[in-house]
Amino acid sequence: MISEKYKNMCNTPSVIRALSVYATERGKEIGYENVFDFSLGNPSVPAPAAFDQAIRDLTEEKSSAELHGYSPNPGNPEVRRIVAESLKRRFGIDYRAEHIFMTSAAASAIAHALRCVTEPGDEVLTFAPFFPEYNPYVNQTGAVLRVVPADTKSFQINFDAFKAMLSSKVQAVLINTPNNPSGVAYSSETLKTLASIMKEAEKTYGHEIFLISDEPYREIVFEGADAPYVSSFYDNTISCYSFSKSLSVPGERIGYVAVNPAAKDAEMIVPMCVQISRGTGHNCPSSIIQMAMARCVDMTSDLRVYETNMNILYKELKELGFTVVKPGGTFYIFPKALEEDANAFCEKAKKYDLILVPSDSFGVKGYFRMAYCIDTEKVERSIPVLRKFVRECYG
Amino acid sequence: MISEKYKNMCNTPSVIRALSVYATERGKEIGYENVFDFSLGNPSVPAPAAFDQAIRDLTEEKSSAELHGYSPNPGNPEVRRIVAESLKRRFGIDYRAEHIFMTSAAASAIAHALRCVTEPGDEVLTFAPFFPEYNPYVNQTGAVLRVVPADTKSFQINFDAFKAMLSSKVQAVLINTPNNPSGVAYSSETLKTLASIMKEAEKTYGHEIFLISDEPYREIVFEGADAPYVSSFYDNTISCYSFSKSLSVPGERIGYVAVNPAAKDAEMIVPMCVQISRGTGHNCPSSIIQMAMARCVDMTSDLRVYETNMNILYKELKELGFTVVKPGGTFYIFPKALEEDANAFCEKAKKYDLILVPSDSFGVKGYFRMAYCIDTEKVERSIPVLRKFVRECYG
Repeated sequence: MISEKYKNMCNTPSVIRALSVYATERGKEIGYENVFDFSLGNPSVPAPAAFDQAIRDLTEEKSSAELHGYSPNPGNPEVRRIVAESLKRRFGIDYRAEHIFMTSAAASAIAHALRCVTEPGDEVLTFAPFFPEYNPYVNQTGAVLRVVPADTKSFQINFDAFKAMLSSKVQAVLINTPNNPSGVAYSSETLKTLASIMKEAEKTYGHEIFLISDEPYREIVFEGADAPYVSSFYDNTISCYSFSKSLSVPGERIGYVAVNPAAKDAEMIVPMCVQISRGTGHNCPSSIIQMAMARCVDMTSDLRVYETNMNILYKELKELGFTVVKPGGTFYIFPKALEEDANAFCEKAKKYDLILVPSDSFGVKGYFRMAYCIDTEKVERSIPVLRKFVRECYG
Repeated sequence: MISEKYKNMCNTPSVIRALSVYATERGKEIGYENVFDFSLGNPSVPAPAAFDQAIRDLTEEKSSAELHGYSPNPGNPEVRRIVAESLKRRFGIDYRAEHIFMTSAAASAIAHALRCVTEPGDEVLTFAPFFPEYNPYVNQTGAVLRVVPADTKSFQINFDAFKAMLSSKVQAVLINTPNNPSGVAYSSETLKTLASIMKEAEKTYGHEIFLISDEPYREIVFEGADAPYVSSFYDNTISCYSFSKSLSVPGERIGYVAVNPAAKDAEMIVPMCVQISRGTGHNCPSSIIQMAMARCVDMTSDLRVYETNMNILYKELKELGFTVVKPGGTFYIFPKALEEDANAFCEKAKKYDLILVPSDSFGVKGYFRMAYCIDTEKVERSIPVLRKFVRECYG
């Protein structure tokens, strides 16, 4: 018989996806250029030319068996070494190849990390606002995701609420900085405090509490932002990285787990990921994509457009009277809606072909997310529409 | 704390992998050309030139966003359509894109299929000899793998044992034809009988029993073999395919789930796979690899070498007095050892630098597997060594 659990899940479609489908359909009626689609976090800038060149070169340079043959389960050894050396060079942590497990991007990295450090029934804490996919990511492992209420003033961390939710059941804390949906990067101060509370809790409860750091936006950081490397603050950290946004290759599914070498049982985590991958059917990202990435490991796409877009939107939203925290990175901004019910607010915006995502599924009420990974030209054209919407509905 | 379950799994290394590591180490001492390494099922023929050409062309023809952007969760829609049409054309089953879920090869296809049709505690039956990775594949879903003893005469199916093991707990039957490790393809007769017993059991127990058909060797079939398409025999079939062996691209991780359109709830299986992939972090194979495969969907590598190698080995093994069933496909052969204890037999062979895999982990005692996906020249050079080994140890 087919599984009731997964069958039932099909009936709860994602709000973001539904809005994106609506935007596409609406585009067919009025031209997609006239739909101000801020729904999806799909990178709009091209991959570096060097990435495509690497792919072409590899097909000429390597034998078929070298290029397309099985990678060992943790990933191509040379690629893992290159990733470890890049991280060591940039962040001063003594990573070696044995701390790196190549994954099909961040989703898969998180899936492995969670299974490494939790058992069914354990609790994983995350902080609102949070990426809604954390629900299936965590809950399908058998662990339970609990959401710490937001610090809506700064979208840093509500530490009082966090402390109140810590218990012997908590085995992991899952964070995402720079953050989807708020765009905020956790400051050094925030990460120091987080680490100190977690260390205290490890003592209190007599077991490790791992920090799982979801970092797909690590390379999209704006001028003046304090956006430090998470693993520098807390030894028991497993970093989950994706090249989807930094190299603009989300379809290629490439990323990694990087285990802090000072973590408890650090040398065990990658072999455990290998075991986990046998059950999930993961078995490594594409070999040519691993090798092409390794040739571009310290490159990024031209990410400046996201900061340009952010500045345009932030300035305008402030001028229109929105309460909004200035993003430190990503390609999201997370203003307070102009009425209590963010769903009603976003429904009204839809009438103006402004596609905004209400905040409820991110674990906060009364806000909305704009994904501005779109052309600057379109962001600029959206401004008079945004003004009209605000004036007519809330003027 | 780190998970005891996965930590403990690290202590039970695979016999096949251990032998392969031994062969590599031994190769460093005496030259790998002098080690007759029949341990690993790693394709030795190159991918079709058209596959690499497709990769290069795609990087020139497509925009970065088209080529490297997110695929929808079930896979690139155009690629799914091409796969469905190819299957329809070849096997006469009315597949449409909605029945195809693109996966990171067969391991991942099986991981999704199992979760679609079982709940924790259910039983999945498979037939010895079987691919040992079925243990983690099934057991990590929470279901239980039970192995039906082999029909050692023909390595078809031991139907009496099968019938005796059917019960209300059995929700799926997992088969692999042409088979790793026996090399035998299930005949039309076998599949007809299997289907009829399963249909009867569905009636008896009042629920569907799905057939999960693991088909990575579907395109490696030898002259005269009766190796029909499994899904033609039984409606409730989920085919799990991999291009790893047919296109010689195991590192690229590309395959699919194909749901028989006549299966119960056929239209639900792919959306359920999408839900499952959220928890496992699967989220699609590489986009460029999907597109390159679609341009080669009806091609294969030059697979003839496997039949050449099989014929050399089969003839020689027979002449040396081995009991052996002639393979109908794959690149494996599975003779009976010349003493009861296959481990002792393979240990003795190792002294001659013949690397053979004892059958215990395949669920049968007293046999051994040879993977002959190696150069014919090496197979030929192995013959005098094989003769010497048999003469000196069992003459």
